[in-house]
Amino acid sequence: MSGTYAVVLAAGMGTRMKSKKHKVLHEICGKPMVLHMVDTLEAAGFDRKVIVVGASREQVMERLGDHEYAIQEEQLGTAHAVMMAKDKLGHEQGLTLVCAGDTPIIRQETLEQMLQAHRASGAAVTVLTAVVDNPFGLGRIIRDEAGNVLRIVEEKDASDEERKVQEINSSVFLYDNQLLFHALAKIDNNNAQGEYYLPDCLEVLRCEGHQVNAYVCEDPREIQGINDRAQLAIANEIIRERIAINHMKNGVTIVDPKGTYIDAGVAIGADTVLLPGTVLEGDTVIGEDCKIGPNAHLVNVTVEDGVKIQHSVLTDAVVEREATVGPFAYLRPKAHIGQGAKIGDFVEIKNAKIGAGSKVSHLSYIGDAEIGSGVNVGCGTITVNYDGVNKYKTIVGDDSFIGCNSNLVAPLTLGKKVYVAAGSTVTDDVPDGALAIARERQVTKEGYTEKLEARLKEQKK
Amino acid sequence: MSGTYAVVLAAGMGTRMKSKKHKVLHEICGKPMVLHMVDTLEAAGFDRKVIVVGASREQVMERLGDHEYAIQEEQLGTAHAVMMAKDKLGHEQGLTLVCAGDTPIIRQETLEQMLQAHRASGAAVTVLTAVVDNPFGLGRIIRDEAGNVLRIVEEKDASDEERKVQEINSSVFLYDNQLLFHALAKIDNNNAQGEYYLPDCLEVLRCEGHQVNAYVCEDPREIQGINDRAQLAIANEIIRERIAINHMKNGVTIVDPKGTYIDAGVAIGADTVLLPGTVLEGDTVIGEDCKIGPNAHLVNVTVEDGVKIQHSVLTDAVVEREATVGPFAYLRPKAHIGQGAKIGDFVEIKNAKIGAGSKVSHLSYIGDAEIGSGVNVGCGTITVNYDGVNKYKTIVGDDSFIGCNSNLVAPLTLGKKVYVAAGSTVTDDVPDGALAIARERQVTKEGYTEKLEARLKEQKK
Amino acid sequence: MSGTYAVVLAAGMGTRMKSKKHKVLHEICGKPMVLHMVDTLEAAGFDRKVIVVGASREQVMERLGDHEYAIQEEQLGTAHAVMMAKDKLGHEQGLTLVCAGDTPIIRQETLEQMLQAHRASGAAVTVLTAVVDNPFGLGRIIRDEAGNVLRIVEEKDASDEERKVQEINSSVFLYDNQLLFHALAKIDNNNAQGEYYLPDCLEVLRCEGHQVNAYVCEDPREIQGINDRAQLAIANEIIRERIAINHMKNGVTIVDPKGTYIDAGVAIGADTVLLPGTVLEGDTVIGEDCKIGPNAHLVNVTVEDGVKIQHSVLTDAVVEREATVGPFAYLRPKAHIGQGAKIGDFVEIKNAKIGAGSKVSHLSYIGDAEIGSGVNVGCGTITVNYDGVNKYKTIVGDDSFIGCNSNLVAPLTLGKKVYVAAGSTVTDDVPDGALAIARERQVTKEGYTEKLEARLKEQKK
Repeated sequence: MSGTYAVVLAAGMGTRMKSKKHKVLHEICGKPMVLHMVDTLEAAGFDRKVIVVGASREQVMERLGDHEYAIQEEQLGTAHAVMMAKDKLGHEQGLTLVCAGDTPIIRQETLEQMLQAHRASGAAVTVLTAVVDNPFGLGRIIRDEAGNVLRIVEEKDASDEERKVQEINSSVFLYDNQLLFHALAKIDNNNAQGEYYLPDCLEVLRCEGHQVNAYVCEDPREIQGINDRAQLAIANEIIRERIAINHMKNGVTIVDPKGTYIDAGVAIGADTVLLPGTVLEGDTVIGEDCKIGPNAHLVNVTVEDGVKIQHSVLTDAVVEREATVGPFAYLRPKAHIGQGAKIGDFVEIKNAKIGAGSKVSHLSYIGDAEIGSGVNVGCGTITVNYDGVNKYKTIVGDDSFIGCNSNLVAPLTLGKKVYVAAGSTVTDDVPDGALAIARERQVTKEGYTEKLEARLKEQKK
Repeated sequence: MSGTYAVVLAAGMGTRMKSKKHKVLHEICGKPMVLHMVDTLEAAGFDRKVIVVGASREQVMERLGDHEYAIQEEQLGTAHAVMMAKDKLGHEQGLTLVCAGDTPIIRQETLEQMLQAHRASGAAVTVLTAVVDNPFGLGRIIRDEAGNVLRIVEEKDASDEERKVQEINSSVFLYDNQLLFHALAKIDNNNAQGEYYLPDCLEVLRCEGHQVNAYVCEDPREIQGINDRAQLAIANEIIRERIAINHMKNGVTIVDPKGTYIDAGVAIGADTVLLPGTVLEGDTVIGEDCKIGPNAHLVNVTVEDGVKIQHSVLTDAVVEREATVGPFAYLRPKAHIGQGAKIGDFVEIKNAKIGAGSKVSHLSYIGDAEIGSGVNVGCGTITVNYDGVNKYKTIVGDDSFIGCNSNLVAPLTLGKKVYVAAGSTVTDDVPDGALAIARERQVTKEGYTEKLEARLKEQKK
Repeated sequence: MSGTYAVVLAAGMGTRMKSKKHKVLHEICGKPMVLHMVDTLEAAGFDRKVIVVGASREQVMERLGDHEYAIQEEQLGTAHAVMMAKDKLGHEQGLTLVCAGDTPIIRQETLEQMLQAHRASGAAVTVLTAVVDNPFGLGRIIRDEAGNVLRIVEEKDASDEERKVQEINSSVFLYDNQLLFHALAKIDNNNAQGEYYLPDCLEVLRCEGHQVNAYVCEDPREIQGINDRAQLAIANEIIRERIAINHMKNGVTIVDPKGTYIDAGVAIGADTVLLPGTVLEGDTVIGEDCKIGPNAHLVNVTVEDGVKIQHSVLTDAVVEREATVGPFAYLRPKAHIGQGAKIGDFVEIKNAKIGAGSKVSHLSYIGDAEIGSGVNVGCGTITVNYDGVNKYKTIVGDDSFIGCNSNLVAPLTLGKKVYVAAGSTVTDDVPDGALAIARERQVTKEGYTEKLEARLKEQKK
């Protein structure tokens, strides 16, 4: 059977990134750049994708996880790198795309069109090219007068005439798989760097009488390789824009797409509005008719329909329908906000379930707790869940009222319709319908302020 | 008398918006897009503006409020839609501009110049056009060799030759009002869609010997219709930039106009600096010499001169001169901050007046209160304004000192120069110059920590 | 000895800024625009820089501080302004660059290349020019058929033919110093404004047989003068982009360079990631491997390696390695966060040292304090450092545990391994290993809520 395969070159560290992290692991919209390439290949229907790793390969393989890898022990050039995939792909019939792991901007449609053009042409190899204003430093596509591709010349090896060519090599090639490995075996390293260069395969095949084709990519930005962090930022901008346009076409309003940051894997329902400064990361899923932002930062959060979240940070949390969060709320892992509940300003929720319609309106910390429905958690309420050694749980029954500035010292169970007086430190369980109070009575000392002030000013001297 | 009139077409729902909300209601800088058009017509001096509504017209009319409407029951094409305004405008003498409700970017100056050109030309109708790089999908302006406008051809009806034309129809027309309704009566729906098309009026009038004129809009972005949310975002960016430039020309410093979001109706004084991430909504009015942002979010807020607000959210509040707010403050409706007062971090103010020079520096909630001048509200102070059923008021006299972590249990009146000891829950009124204290005395148990730790670790097992 | 000198013209107030602040003092990336020019001259190796001040010169000199100034009492034109530097530079041999104080975008490389071109040409004067699409309003460079520069013509004095010239004057000139002052003495004010114009010097020198040269700046944006705040915003954007690119080339990841705001003097280590909305001001220094943002706002902060700061505001603070800050923390002057410490949400630290590994996780205020290492500061802890007159210090020993919602009433010293029970107001010193408790015992009243509710509802009526 004739399949489609890909070899993704991810061996070189990328010194211009000036990073302890391997180049292809640098992230764009929450995903290492090489995975953008791999996922695009997957979407374009490639059956197998072999990633050639070399420098810092433990780091690369640990981060990328379950993929098909080939290992290049020594870095002897791009052709040598592809050769490392011979054990895996050398016996296959079909087409093999060879690409770099640092060209994350290429679109699925471009690869599909290139495949189609390649098949229609009957060529042995097709190189993806683009025409750019300033080709300086890039490999040029040299054609004969009839327009046939002859070879690829690097900047440093190019004649003055060749340097004027504006069509450049993207380093993406589509080969007949058998011819690829045939050609690889024939090239040598007789050049300044002493490396085996992949583009040399083109000339090998052409000289053997095979047809060499070029497919010109309309938008030269797509084939841009990422070699430093300025280029990384540009790639980020382009891919971010694509993600935003996709959501907008699906019915999401994004007030400022350039100032909104949505990871590749995020899902958003129609008629949801994203306000500026919003950052949506990881596996975040947002329902319809929500209003998210400004400055909402969600990481792996599930948000149901009709929710409003502003100026808040949420991580690994769930917010049920019609609930409101913020401004200035912090929902930490396992925060679960019930339907129509209100989490207000300066409130932290951690590993706690807040029941439907309950309110934690301001200046509170609810951790390791189960709060029932219809509960009013007063301003300044704190679940005292930690004693320095252990963490304990707080349970509050439905329709209870927790007075302001209360401490709920866990382990603690308050029943339903419990009333806690403001300023109380509650240490013992309270049954349904009971009041708990734990505070000193007020003493008023008339005429005291004047004396006090005099004393304090005396101290100041 | 000869007047100027406008018919604004807002009947079509706009399926590409993928929205439960009617297309023309989608907002740009705080205003439904159709109102941008209506307000621009108003500014350009049009005497009457009739909005033709159809699909979801209750939703449209409710949101837009008091305007002159015509109703199109069935959507039988743009010419039919304009016909619906005949009862209102058919008897008038003068000029009638017909436009879509989804072209909010057109500028007042463009309409004024078009009016002027139309009057100078003596034409029966002038169409606003633009020359674009990629006219695909848009109606082309077909002219004869002398440059006279013959007709408008839609993409699907255009010949190959006509498709090459780069001058496109904006769907903005300026008609002699009588000739408009005369022409409308003559067009038919013999076309693929079976609709009555407004552009057909041009040919009707030309064939009757009237002059048809075109006015070319210099910036083709102006006439862009908004059909999906990606186009909505672009319109938002353009209009936002215009608003920013206008404020900058008037002496407002905006560090990053692209990352600052100012609604159409906001007023800002000279020498005020807006820092990035700032969002100014609704009827917000800001004085001179203020420093607003980063990340200040103001909705319907009045800010006097010399105020500083950073990283805070304010809604329906007033901030008097020289006061400072934030970072991380939340001012809710009816918060009124006096001259030179300081509202610090993690502070919420709701329906409360804070007197001149008073300080609520951190971690406090002041709701339903009147705080005098020169008051120091200690960290962690909470007005206990709600008992689960009723809300009550707290009054604090001038020059009082509220100790940290105090609860002021409303209804409560503290006099002037009252001193509340830290950690007190104050439930009874306090007269001028008195001290209120309500807390338990400290007990110190030496050597206790070791025993406690041992016990806690035992529990952990 | 032959040196290089510069005269920077900063006399004119700049009415189009509509500001009480002198034009050249308006800031770009944290630095008055004129200092961008002066610093670029310094970097390009100019030996002396004389700033000519006039309008509001006290304001200018106070803000700019220690520089060499010449004073122009009356504003009689640019040539007159340069003449004011004669006392300082008139006796020098060498080259003098004359420029405006409002062209902050010019790059060091441009000045260096201009110097080199000038020296190679042997000209008496070289004018920096640029070719622009729309030269309207700008002085045109008039050349003869051989391309020799003849003179500079202002818009209003230009013929129709001259107005078509697209090469414009940048108002940056490089003169032989002796010829500059020689020419200045010869020009008159016989023109519409009655002013002495600097460009007239060119013609004076040319007519005396000296060579006049032009050096064309490749990027016309560089020579843009800043006359209003819209231009200020554009300059800000350009310089901000340059700063960002510089950091990125050095190994800093900036997810969105356009939405990140870095002052000119900030230093950042490799492999640090800056997330959107981050503002780095003043003398901020950030180490390697940090994660800063989103929405981190740092002013004069020192951050060591491996620190994470999100959604927080820090001013004049120090954060040691591996510490974490935020979200929603506020570090005020003299906050010093120890290695590996955690400052969490809704926490303010002011003039306080937090020891290594200590945690202030939520809703706390620590001011005027020394917290040891390994301390757990419970949620809602407040250092009561102010009594209305004096500020006092709180000391907490290593490995202590402060229970939630505690008040630490300063002056106060807690020993090592002290345990404070939740809800306590601690007023007296506590020795090593002791427990402090200060709260009322809980009273539970069964069946009370029903009665309470009935009473509260009664009150409501």
